[in-house]
Amino acid sequence: MNTHSVRREKNNEKYQAILRAAIKVFASRGFFQSKVADVAQAAGVADGTVYLYFKSKDDLLISIFNETMDDVIAKSRGELQKIEDPVERLRKIASLHLAWLGQDRQLAVVFQVELRQSTKFMEEFSTTRLAEYFELIREVIVDGQAKGIFRKEVQPQVATKVFFGALDEMVTNWILSRKRYALETMVRPVLDILIRGLAT
Amino acid sequence: MNTHSVRREKNNEKYQAILRAAIKVFASRGFFQSKVADVAQAAGVADGTVYLYFKSKDDLLISIFNETMDDVIAKSRGELQKIEDPVERLRKIASLHLAWLGQDRQLAVVFQVELRQSTKFMEEFSTTRLAEYFELIREVIVDGQAKGIFRKEVQPQVATKVFFGALDEMVTNWILSRKRYALETMVRPVLDILIRGLAT
Repeated sequence: MNTHSVRREKNNEKYQAILRAAIKVFASRGFFQSKVADVAQAAGVADGTVYLYFKSKDDLLISIFNETMDDVIAKSRGELQKIEDPVERLRKIASLHLAWLGQDRQLAVVFQVELRQSTKFMEEFSTTRLAEYFELIREVIVDGQAKGIFRKEVQPQVATKVFFGALDEMVTNWILSRKRYALETMVRPVLDILIRGLAT
Repeated sequence: MNTHSVRREKNNEKYQAILRAAIKVFASRGFFQSKVADVAQAAGVADGTVYLYFKSKDDLLISIFNETMDDVIAKSRGELQKIEDPVERLRKIASLHLAWLGQDRQLAVVFQVELRQSTKFMEEFSTTRLAEYFELIREVIVDGQAKGIFRKEVQPQVATKVFFGALDEMVTNWILSRKRYALETMVRPVLDILIRGLAT
């Protein structure tokens, strides 16, 4: 399979239906307890069809991560280009992060729980798309320091992890909470603490 | 088995050896791939001996969580009683949190990865010892607000999650990083951001 056909498949309806089914199955049964056959059934395709697009169950999980992160990073980069103020840029990243997971509970369960099953997966994720996402946040902080809005003493790498860690905890709390609330409502109070923590 | 015998077992050498072995096995093979027999072998006891103390593999994981959290919460509560300043109290919590996981990589892997295997486990943890730990942090923030050190506009519940999320991300980054560094060195730069974010 060459790169061209792989790229075409990302826009393929069946490819997307299988990924969607995998999110649903992994979120409800857990990744370890799920079988490729369960995903096929949920997608309404034959088992063999899944293997036309994905090498394995692991590949399904990795593809959910990669596809979603590609979308989020592209969307975030696009939005950030329209904004000058470093504070508003951080607010936009937080907003997109919480909106994107807050609108899809199953995807949030896959991201907060199923994708963190093993150090093997986590190492793979943290050195690829997640590193890219961290870099996007870090650039905004560095830019804010250059503009004199954020304190120079703050280590951008540390601030990035604090920022991500805070948002990440909000998502995990949201999926575990018995209360139902819109995840996006957390942007304001969380950013109030973080922005003040960074500001000159 | 009555409560008395269970309490006695917490100080039992074999009970502790089995828990220690479980941390080692779960951290290296992953919880799902581990068998109770692997834990027994690592502890140097017969399989049946494990079942004298633990009902199941799940019970081993839950016991690691409960025992560790009981220690950490008791230690933190004890230390906090000696400190008046809300800022120094938060610093102490962060210090103990990062020292405790930073001195035991296997325990950190179990806490950051293996304990988050399933929403079932996470729901159980988040409503028990983790809720207690969050409450300990929240009380310090509320006290800081009463003393006029922390801003009244900050929602203590949100600040607690931001604080925990930031520390938690530091630990996860530390176990995944190829660089070797002392986790405790993160206390200062992280608290610098968070304390400023909370301060009046």
